[in-house]
Amino acid sequence: MNVPNHFELLATDGAARTGRLTTPHGAVRTPAFLPVGTAGAMKGMHWRAVRDAGADIVLGNTYHLMLRPGAERIADLGGLQAFTGWRGPMLTDSGGFQVMSLSELRKVSERAVIFRSHIDGAKVELSPERSIEVQRLLGSDIAMQMDECVRLPAEPADIERAMQLSLRWAERSKRAFENAASGTMLFGIVQGGDVPDLRHLSARGLVEIGFHGYAIGGLAVGEPQAVMLAMIEETAPLLPRDRPRYLMGVGRPIDLLEAISRGVDLFDCVMPTRHARNAHLFTRFGVLNIRNAIHQKDTNPIEPGCGCYTCRHFSRSYLRHLDKCNEILGAHLNTVHNLYFYQRLMAEIRDAIDAGYFEAYAKEFYAFKDGGPA
Amino acid sequence: MNVPNHFELLATDGAARTGRLTTPHGAVRTPAFLPVGTAGAMKGMHWRAVRDAGADIVLGNTYHLMLRPGAERIADLGGLQAFTGWRGPMLTDSGGFQVMSLSELRKVSERAVIFRSHIDGAKVELSPERSIEVQRLLGSDIAMQMDECVRLPAEPADIERAMQLSLRWAERSKRAFENAASGTMLFGIVQGGDVPDLRHLSARGLVEIGFHGYAIGGLAVGEPQAVMLAMIEETAPLLPRDRPRYLMGVGRPIDLLEAISRGVDLFDCVMPTRHARNAHLFTRFGVLNIRNAIHQKDTNPIEPGCGCYTCRHFSRSYLRHLDKCNEILGAHLNTVHNLYFYQRLMAEIRDAIDAGYFEAYAKEFYAFKDGGPA
Repeated sequence: MNVPNHFELLATDGAARTGRLTTPHGAVRTPAFLPVGTAGAMKGMHWRAVRDAGADIVLGNTYHLMLRPGAERIADLGGLQAFTGWRGPMLTDSGGFQVMSLSELRKVSERAVIFRSHIDGAKVELSPERSIEVQRLLGSDIAMQMDECVRLPAEPADIERAMQLSLRWAERSKRAFENAASGTMLFGIVQGGDVPDLRHLSARGLVEIGFHGYAIGGLAVGEPQAVMLAMIEETAPLLPRDRPRYLMGVGRPIDLLEAISRGVDLFDCVMPTRHARNAHLFTRFGVLNIRNAIHQKDTNPIEPGCGCYTCRHFSRSYLRHLDKCNEILGAHLNTVHNLYFYQRLMAEIRDAIDAGYFEAYAKEFYAFKDGGPA
Repeated sequence: MNVPNHFELLATDGAARTGRLTTPHGAVRTPAFLPVGTAGAMKGMHWRAVRDAGADIVLGNTYHLMLRPGAERIADLGGLQAFTGWRGPMLTDSGGFQVMSLSELRKVSERAVIFRSHIDGAKVELSPERSIEVQRLLGSDIAMQMDECVRLPAEPADIERAMQLSLRWAERSKRAFENAASGTMLFGIVQGGDVPDLRHLSARGLVEIGFHGYAIGGLAVGEPQAVMLAMIEETAPLLPRDRPRYLMGVGRPIDLLEAISRGVDLFDCVMPTRHARNAHLFTRFGVLNIRNAIHQKDTNPIEPGCGCYTCRHFSRSYLRHLDKCNEILGAHLNTVHNLYFYQRLMAEIRDAIDAGYFEAYAKEFYAFKDGGPA
C-alpha cells in the first residue's frame, strides 16, 4: 500500500468531512461536485462559466474522447487541458461504464471488453491496461480503474461475478498505472451491487491493493435511494479515512447531502447540465420547469437571491421564451444557473461542516417545499 | 420634412462616410454592422459577447417577436431591452420581409398583409400602422416602415406596383409614427428592384415624406453583386447627406466594403452568425471551413493575430472537434469569432475613412487570397 497521498482531511462533522485534494492542475475543495464535460466540452457551457460557477474540477469521459478525437490525437495536442482550454483539474472515468451503456455488440471477457463504437461502428478493444494508457494520454489528473458495473436489480451471482472481475481488473489497472510514467492519481472502484457482503469484499480487496482514492460504483443504476444510502453505509467505513471517497454518477441535491453525511467527498453527474437543457432548473424551493406557462409574464429570476449570472440578469419570462424558441442562449443560461446551484450547495455544505452545523444545514434544506430540490 | 436629426456626419473619404447616430440607448458609430438577434436572442451568443465583439447596435425581428412572445407581452415586461438584457440600441424591421419569406397563405392588399404564422398557423394581420405599433411596443430605437420587397429577377411592372405600394405605406407609417408617443426614429425604405427609374422615384418620394433615415431595401434578393452596387449608386446620391443610409440584409465583407465606398452607413445580416453555426469562419485570408479534416491536428487559432476570445484561447483542432460532436460550445465560439471579424472590419473601415486612406484599405483587403473574405 505504498501509495502517496494527495488528500488532506480538514474537518469532520459527524461522518461528513471537508478536505483538500491536490492535483498537478490545482487544488480541489471537498466535498466537490464534478460537472461532466463528456466529449471535451461542458454541454451548453463555456469553460469560463464552469469556473465562475465555482467548480474546481470536471470530469471527462474516456469512452467519448478515445473514439473522438482519439487519445493519441489529444496527447499530440498536449493533453486534455491544452486541447479543451479547461486549465483546472480533470478526472477521467475508465470508459467501461459508457461501453456498457452506449456501444453495441460488446463482449466482456477476462482480458478486455470488445465493442463497436456508437459513432461509426468501428470495433474497439478496451482492457484495464488500455484504459489506463488512454487516461494517461489524455493527461488526466485522476484516473479510474476499469470495472464492470451491473444494473440493478440483478442476481447476486451476476453481481458477484462482476465484482470479482472488477477486483482483478483493479490489480491490473494498478500495475499498468505504476509501470507508466507517474504524475496522476488512480482510484479503485468498489462494486458489489446491493449485496452488503460483496461490498465488504470489494472494499477490502481494493484497500489491500492500495489506491490514491476510492470510488463507490454501481449505484444510482436503478435501485431506490434507501438502497444506495445503505450501500454507502456498508462501504464508506471500510475505506481509509485519509483517502478521498467518490460516489460515481450521483446525483440529485438530496443524494449529495445524504451521501456527504455518510462520509463521501466527491460526486459527478450530468444532472445539472442535462436538466438545464430540458428546462428543469434547481432552486432552494424545489425544481422549477421554465417551460411552464406560469412563467410567461414572470419578471423574477429563476431563484430570487441567487448570485448566478443568469439570475442576476435574466427573467423567467425571457428564459421561457428562449426555451420555446430553442435558442442556444436558453440552454446556456439555464446551465449556468444549475451548475451554480450545485456548486453553491457544495460550498454551503463545506462551510457547514467546517463550522460544525452540517446537520442543522441539512435539516433546513429539507424543510423547503417538496423536501428540497430533487 | 420637419423630422429631427439624430445623425452626425463626422468625416468623409470619397463617398464613404463616418458618423454617429444617437439613440435613447446609446450612440452608434457608423459605418455599423448590426448583428441579427432574430427572436430576442443572438443565435449561439451571449449578449455580453455581442458587446465584447464591438457591436453598438443589434437588430430584432418584428415578425418573430410579434408572434412569440408577442409585442404586448414584451411591452408589459418593459420592452425589448429589459426583456432580453441587451441594453444597447436596437433596430427593428417592419416584419414585412419575414411575412413574405416565412409565413404561409399570405395575402397582400392595399390595407395590410394577412398571413398565417409559421409557428402555430394562427391568422395574423400586419398593416403599416400595426407594424409601427408593434415596433413601439417592443421599444425599438429605430423603427422601419413596412414595405413590400420583391425577389429578383422580377417583371418591372411587379417591381413598380410593389414600390408604389411601399411608398403609400411609407406615408401611412410616418403618420402612425407621428400620432403615437415619440422617442424613436423611423426609417423609410427605398424600393424599385433593379430598375433605376423606379429607385429614383422611390427615393424622391420618401425624401418628400421625410424620415430620420433611409434604407435601401429589395437588394441581396437574388441579383448579382454588380446590380446591387449599381442600384446603390442610383439611390444613395438622392438621399439627404445628413441622414443615415441603411442597406438592409447585406452581406458579405466585400459587399460591405463596396457599399460603404458608395456612401452607405448601416448594414445587417445573419451571415456571420449563421455561417458560424455552419462552420464557415471569416478570416483576413478568406473563409475557413472548420469542418475540414485539414484542421484535425492544427493548434493554430482560426485566424492568427485575431484578438477575439475564441482565437486567443482555442485551437482549430478543438473547434473542429466541437463541430464534429455538435457541441453548443462550438457554435458559440465560432459565432464569437465571426461577429468579432465583422465588427473589427467595421472599426478598421471607420479608422480608414477618418484618416483618409479608405481606398488603400479596400485595395489591401482585396489583395488577400480569393479576393478577400467572401
